[in-house]
Amino acid sequence: MTTGRLEAFSDGVFAIAITLLVLNLTAPDRNVARGLARQWPGLAAYVLSFVVVGIIWMNHHALFERVVAVDRPLMLLNLHLLLWVALLPFPTSLVAKNLTHGFDGRVSVAVYSGVMTGMSVAFSLLWGWVVRSDRLLHASIDPVDARARSWRFYVGLVAYPVAVVVSFVNAPAAFALHCVLAVYYLADQLPKQDRTNGPPDAGSHP
Amino acid sequence: MTTGRLEAFSDGVFAIAITLLVLNLTAPDRNVARGLARQWPGLAAYVLSFVVVGIIWMNHHALFERVVAVDRPLMLLNLHLLLWVALLPFPTSLVAKNLTHGFDGRVSVAVYSGVMTGMSVAFSLLWGWVVRSDRLLHASIDPVDARARSWRFYVGLVAYPVAVVVSFVNAPAAFALHCVLAVYYLADQLPKQDRTNGPPDAGSHP
Amino acid sequence: MTTGRLEAFSDGVFAIAITLLVLNLTAPDRNVARGLARQWPGLAAYVLSFVVVGIIWMNHHALFERVVAVDRPLMLLNLHLLLWVALLPFPTSLVAKNLTHGFDGRVSVAVYSGVMTGMSVAFSLLWGWVVRSDRLLHASIDPVDARARSWRFYVGLVAYPVAVVVSFVNAPAAFALHCVLAVYYLADQLPKQDRTNGPPDAGSHP
Amino acid sequence: MTTGRLEAFSDGVFAIAITLLVLNLTAPDRNVARGLARQWPGLAAYVLSFVVVGIIWMNHHALFERVVAVDRPLMLLNLHLLLWVALLPFPTSLVAKNLTHGFDGRVSVAVYSGVMTGMSVAFSLLWGWVVRSDRLLHASIDPVDARARSWRFYVGLVAYPVAVVVSFVNAPAAFALHCVLAVYYLADQLPKQDRTNGPPDAGSHP
Repeated sequence: MTTGRLEAFSDGVFAIAITLLVLNLTAPDRNVARGLARQWPGLAAYVLSFVVVGIIWMNHHALFERVVAVDRPLMLLNLHLLLWVALLPFPTSLVAKNLTHGFDGRVSVAVYSGVMTGMSVAFSLLWGWVVRSDRLLHASIDPVDARARSWRFYVGLVAYPVAVVVSFVNAPAAFALHCVLAVYYLADQLPKQDRTNGPPDAGSHP
Repeated sequence: MTTGRLEAFSDGVFAIAITLLVLNLTAPDRNVARGLARQWPGLAAYVLSFVVVGIIWMNHHALFERVVAVDRPLMLLNLHLLLWVALLPFPTSLVAKNLTHGFDGRVSVAVYSGVMTGMSVAFSLLWGWVVRSDRLLHASIDPVDARARSWRFYVGLVAYPVAVVVSFVNAPAAFALHCVLAVYYLADQLPKQDRTNGPPDAGSHP
Repeated sequence: MTTGRLEAFSDGVFAIAITLLVLNLTAPDRNVARGLARQWPGLAAYVLSFVVVGIIWMNHHALFERVVAVDRPLMLLNLHLLLWVALLPFPTSLVAKNLTHGFDGRVSVAVYSGVMTGMSVAFSLLWGWVVRSDRLLHASIDPVDARARSWRFYVGLVAYPVAVVVSFVNAPAAFALHCVLAVYYLADQLPKQDRTNGPPDAGSHP
Repeated sequence: MTTGRLEAFSDGVFAIAITLLVLNLTAPDRNVARGLARQWPGLAAYVLSFVVVGIIWMNHHALFERVVAVDRPLMLLNLHLLLWVALLPFPTSLVAKNLTHGFDGRVSVAVYSGVMTGMSVAFSLLWGWVVRSDRLLHASIDPVDARARSWRFYVGLVAYPVAVVVSFVNAPAAFALHCVLAVYYLADQLPKQDRTNGPPDAGSHP
């Protein structure tokens, strides 16, 4: 089985999750200017989650460019990743509603960080399954070598739990940490091809 | 006609239904920690339905790998299946709101089981139409043989009505039964190819 | 330009519109059995609109099988059709909320019929543009002949305005008329190929 | 990397954003006729935003027909465009709720114009990146020439900020300006191919 339909389904979930984020913003009825000014946590959460889902999509794309075959465990691990991605509008809404409410704000950002931790674990399991053997991996990538160089992609496994802890101390600092991690994952952190045979270098910088 | 556009449309419906499930969760405004703790039935229903729709998608995928042509009745039977899939967020919301409310909880899980029964009937009709002749079926599968081995896929026709009855007795037991059935359908229960000519073995275990 | 991306985008809109219909159903909080019994207009409206959108999708598919090229007017006429399709959840919700409310119910079904009239006009304009010349039409179909045989597809241009009038007299009768029209369009009413060269016969009965 | 999956993901976001617009319309419960009559700003905003997103989709399509390769900056600039497109249901809802409320109506149309300004900036950056070199551009288009003829596509960079200013003076005038700009962008304003080698002329008038 090729990766086509799995990617199409995943793209659908990414596209819907990213577009549903706007439903967290409710248009004020009267006093529009003041109502909008008060909604800045909602807008900040919208932009953060939009960028986060967008980058997850880019990395999902980059990962599946390195994959040549799909088996049932891979489909399941991919579903597991999508479960966390599709859940993201919920903690986004939590942050939007509570960011400025002291302790409730800190709990909300902690929940957000917790969901991102789950997403990070799911993404790492997915990649771990791909590099486990050379059956699923593109011929241009050496699995042994790829496993050794995967730690850069696994950084989130430590960084997102740290964000959970930081959330309870200082909500804006945890928010900022999520921005930093977004920038980190904006660069393609997956092991590159070994430049022997073939195309899968699309995600890398020229 | 090939199966391409039918699968693309179905994937769209699956992807949207699975992503809309998150709308059943409403972020609390104040008292976030307590509000979230009280939402555990909503989170449990989210995870169950997400996994259920995900597995339906995987089996839909496995089914259409065995199909080489599409006719109008098949399109209609597929639409019928999608009608039940797209309805699933509704009983999920019912369970999320009422699981802990005694009799209302039992009725809610019964409705959930009823919708799953409808889904199971629709899926069985779809497969029944495919194996009815050798016109739609992939050349690597013998229709006579496939019909004889289809009973494993039809298990849901008995199991989901049982879940309806169990719901009225014990809601958590019915919930658990849905989890068991999800695991059952996680394995590819459709008749495999006869290993004579060709590829459609993607869904099977290595 | 081929029809690929236009069909993909349209399939997306169809899939979302058909899946959003479920949001018109709100799960009752307590008294689940009674609450569900009272929601039968909502369920009836859900099933009708689901089937209607599904059949529109099937006919959209059948139409574009007869098309070989896409120009800007065709893209615009397709967008116009999608505008009516994407609007359908709104009159569906109107019918769900008001069907049993006497005059309000009749107005609601009339609005539903009005939106279906708009959809029918849009679909007829789309087909009219396709058969206007032989530039867009598949080589196996003769445009002159196709124009002469298109009246069967244009039946809705008369039938849906009739449904608007009937709505004001008797809402259930208009509802039934929509069911009849759905069955009518279930069959492929577009002119078939002239059986000279090529494939586009997928939608017809064997 | 080809443009396939990027276009598929973008089409998903366009399709969802355009279909979510209908959620801004709430069906009245009683007094349907009067309730609908009062909702004309909602219907007007629905039609405007539907047409706007539809035309953005057409131009997105036309732009990527001129693109042969995708790099990470292009993916990011595309995400940036989608961020504004996915946000559009929010100012649409703002206009729907407040158009007839004096100052609040003017602020709402100004916010709408502001989001369209962001969309226009994002679209211009996207095109600017494509024509920056001849690496991403289709071989039939000369980058130097294309850059010189791009000003017609950049008109929105001036026109939408003008709409922001007009909004504060006269909301209906700004609304009308958006209609004019929609018609302007309905025509394909991107530089055409140089008619030397190849296909990408689909969006142009015959």
